[in-house]
Amino acid sequence: MVSATFSWLKGHGTENDFVLLPDHDGTTHGPLAPDLVRALSDRRRGIGGDGVLRVIRTEALRAFDGRIPDIDAEWFMDYRNADGSLSEMCGNGVRVFALHLVESGLADPAEPLFVGTRGGTRTVTFGDDQISVDMGVAELQGHTKVCVGDRGWEAYRVSLGNPHAVTFVDELADAGPLLEAPVYDPEDFPGGVNVEFVRRLLPGHIAMRVYERGSGETRSCGTGACAAAVATAADQGVPRPVRLRVDVPGGRLHVRWHEDGRVDLAGPAAIVARGETSADLLRQ
Amino acid sequence: MVSATFSWLKGHGTENDFVLLPDHDGTTHGPLAPDLVRALSDRRRGIGGDGVLRVIRTEALRAFDGRIPDIDAEWFMDYRNADGSLSEMCGNGVRVFALHLVESGLADPAEPLFVGTRGGTRTVTFGDDQISVDMGVAELQGHTKVCVGDRGWEAYRVSLGNPHAVTFVDELADAGPLLEAPVYDPEDFPGGVNVEFVRRLLPGHIAMRVYERGSGETRSCGTGACAAAVATAADQGVPRPVRLRVDVPGGRLHVRWHEDGRVDLAGPAAIVARGETSADLLRQ
Repeated sequence: MVSATFSWLKGHGTENDFVLLPDHDGTTHGPLAPDLVRALSDRRRGIGGDGVLRVIRTEALRAFDGRIPDIDAEWFMDYRNADGSLSEMCGNGVRVFALHLVESGLADPAEPLFVGTRGGTRTVTFGDDQISVDMGVAELQGHTKVCVGDRGWEAYRVSLGNPHAVTFVDELADAGPLLEAPVYDPEDFPGGVNVEFVRRLLPGHIAMRVYERGSGETRSCGTGACAAAVATAADQGVPRPVRLRVDVPGGRLHVRWHEDGRVDLAGPAAIVARGETSADLLRQ
Repeated sequence: MVSATFSWLKGHGTENDFVLLPDHDGTTHGPLAPDLVRALSDRRRGIGGDGVLRVIRTEALRAFDGRIPDIDAEWFMDYRNADGSLSEMCGNGVRVFALHLVESGLADPAEPLFVGTRGGTRTVTFGDDQISVDMGVAELQGHTKVCVGDRGWEAYRVSLGNPHAVTFVDELADAGPLLEAPVYDPEDFPGGVNVEFVRRLLPGHIAMRVYERGSGETRSCGTGACAAAVATAADQGVPRPVRLRVDVPGGRLHVRWHEDGRVDLAGPAAIVARGETSADLLRQ
């Protein structure tokens, strides 16, 4: 049997890139197979991306995934990592996801959009060329230490649902090629940690590199940018609300840390291509 | 002005991957802009690939590229490297190119297909699940030496139009992570060299890794597989014609070295997706 052709789109936010799979009622892909996610994400044998975003109605996904709560969001970002595993949320991914809904006429950019994710419902708002998403509450959790090779740095511990260690460096090159995970204190981070290396450029403007647990150094990390901004504001004693410009290798993000501890992440998003493929074609 | 949408396909041969641009009469892209090639090849902001193959009639390309000779091949593989530069030939690329012509009904797989390239006209033949291309004459040019870190190896010098140094190792891991170009003798290779590290598995069966000049370590290299096979046969004193199976990181290739010195490269090829984009979308 020849497998059916299906549509996809490719998009990115500051070079954090994704394959989008429109599957509004869940009948195209059903319970999304990890094999298909890996094949789509393969940069040489497939389309290529850091992850796959299925575009599905919350109600349709709940029909075959009992863990999806009954939430007040029509659309659900069914996010998978490139290795096929599930992930709760992705700050750059949800911005690309929201842009696709607007470009397809499925969401009104004049209104806030509620997107269901496994990390909870997220609110997305649309600016002229920026898409902003609430990333929940950032928690400063004290200090820790990280090392790369024979160099060590004091670091801030920051949680955005996932754990971060934020260090300040004089030059971004100081962290070296980051071929291996920075060494961290396993008592502080029993499940591993994402490490941000931050250089202060100007008041309200930083540049960073990030080593993501499980992925290595990446071009951009939404929660990492938020953690870096929060640690910078805390380190400098800047009162909230505060807004920081965060340069990542793949572009520029903007982070707002509100008085109530919530963080917004804003930045560009783009859908760059659309096409068709099938499971059989990807299996070659 | 919004730039026009155009079609593309994505294909690979042993994970050497390409963006194909059908532009039969040259009117879609005209003189192909290096900027567009780079944007298409970008793995995060574009489609992603090791290079771009424009599918164009030889006559159409000659209309705006005076260096294209008057050859007896209807179709021309207008090959560009991912960085936008021109390249004469690509052994995996021409096999993917030929598969696309067959899948589009533009070539008959029962007949040999002549494909124009800047390296000359190539003959492609189609097997059940293999596509074979003549790679021209391989020339053994004596010995040289290459080093990686503090390890050094004797190597065969082999030319397939481009220069290769082929070394034999006990384990493919012996060459290490190959983050930097192996050190070679600049008198032997004034224009740089591609280096193959070969492990003998069985008679007629080798495995290799390759460091391509300008690209770094890659998943597959057509001329590299041919050079590795030729050096292996020469080293073992096997008389021609000889056939070798060559395992590369991205799959398996087959090389035949004929009595007259000519080499054929055979292996799988696949078109995995097709789609649309525009220069504006890729510029985001």
